[in-house]
Amino acid sequence: MLTLFIGNKAYSSWSLRPWILLATLHIPFEEKLINLYDDAGKKKLRRQSPTAKVPMLVDGDIEVWESIAILEYLAEKYPAKNIWPKNKAARAHARSLCAEMHAGYMALRRNYPTNFRRDVRKRELTPEADAEVAADVARIDAAWSKARMLFGKGGPFLFGKFSAADAMFAPVVNRLYIYDAPVSKTTRDYMTAIMALPAWVAWHADAAKEKWHHEIYDSI
Amino acid sequence: MLTLFIGNKAYSSWSLRPWILLATLHIPFEEKLINLYDDAGKKKLRRQSPTAKVPMLVDGDIEVWESIAILEYLAEKYPAKNIWPKNKAARAHARSLCAEMHAGYMALRRNYPTNFRRDVRKRELTPEADAEVAADVARIDAAWSKARMLFGKGGPFLFGKFSAADAMFAPVVNRLYIYDAPVSKTTRDYMTAIMALPAWVAWHADAAKEKWHHEIYDSI
Ligand SMILES: N[C@@H](CCC(=O)N[C@@H](CS)C(=O)NCC(=O)O)C(=O)O
Ligand SMILES: N[C@@H](CCC(=O)N[C@@H](CS)C(=O)NCC(=O)O)C(=O)O
Repeated sequence: MLTLFIGNKAYSSWSLRPWILLATLHIPFEEKLINLYDDAGKKKLRRQSPTAKVPMLVDGDIEVWESIAILEYLAEKYPAKNIWPKNKAARAHARSLCAEMHAGYMALRRNYPTNFRRDVRKRELTPEADAEVAADVARIDAAWSKARMLFGKGGPFLFGKFSAADAMFAPVVNRLYIYDAPVSKTTRDYMTAIMALPAWVAWHADAAKEKWHHEIYDSI
Repeated sequence: MLTLFIGNKAYSSWSLRPWILLATLHIPFEEKLINLYDDAGKKKLRRQSPTAKVPMLVDGDIEVWESIAILEYLAEKYPAKNIWPKNKAARAHARSLCAEMHAGYMALRRNYPTNFRRDVRKRELTPEADAEVAADVARIDAAWSKARMLFGKGGPFLFGKFSAADAMFAPVVNRLYIYDAPVSKTTRDYMTAIMALPAWVAWHADAAKEKWHHEIYDSI
């Protein structure tokens, strides 16, 4: 049985990535949630994970950390699930987008933190921060639209059927949605498809029930 | 024929990653070097790459950007080269380390920029920056030593034989070396093995011959 260590569902964007993949593709796993914001949780995290970060996947003797490595591990373990697109060009494109996400969009990540309990409302930023975020949003919108145009024929997701790329971008959907970022119709339709996933709805409901509150995130 | 777009060999850490992999594993490719520091180069970069960054790999119709996506693409295209370790646990470990590198070690990257023409010499930093860099160096040293201990029996590299993980960390070897970072004997031996690779020596020689100079990097 796989064990997935994750952080608070309200705020932990990285944790959502492998979680939504596993849940959407009906791969059985046990979830272990660590509260990232108290001392006991922080201690547990340092003991559990080589980088003191979540997500981390444990499969028997094997420990996999870092979201993108977890997605690759799952793709190898469950070939029938087509976690990466089957088409070679689509797969290369999907991996490029995922790697771009893994290391990028810093302005968006800094200024529009993930929060599954926030209502939809713009955030006031300085003009510089606003411009940086707008550039990230524009790149994401263009990248999603291009993937959908080139490879998205078979369904509502980036590469048609749900894939690792959608898992990797799921937290971005939350950010664009709650901060009411201006996006194209293609991107808005894509966001609607992600937010309609049963796994998304379940994560959202769990986040709503969490009793921890992070002062800074909740004031943004 | 594969085409690899790269930046200045003196400074472009990301470019070195797929380049050293291709060169070390004797995979034929054509190199296209873009000078990242003049207007013509910047224009070319924006035209060529979806993120206006190098490295980028072109294989016929297929464009792959982001180092880690390029490594995965090559691993699929050349299965006989064992670009990832063959052992499943080693492979999961290697991918976790590569993903950690892809998004991490920000203090090291900010304060110890890659420079293939710099002589070996410590860099004076503020105590805070020094502490942050030291934490990154300690994590890297521990991670390399652990990989070598668990999976490094078959050769001098992180997973024994040369793999994607060594390609991903090659620029870090340059950083630790030129800024004379204190490292364990295991890590020093590993660095020596990387710096003895013919591909490393060739990259170094090319970097020495480049005529562009980046004022800031060269003053650090
Ligand atoms: N690059 C990592 C990022 C993981 C990450 O930053 N996780 C955050 C939660 S979303 C974390 O564990 N933070 C713990 C802390 O900062 O104490 C990945 O892809 O998994
Ligand atoms: N995450 C990217 C990083 C690529 C990157 O930052 N490349 C630098 C050169 S080392 C670049 O192209 N910079 C161009 C610029 O900043 O104008 C990857 O893995 O390839």
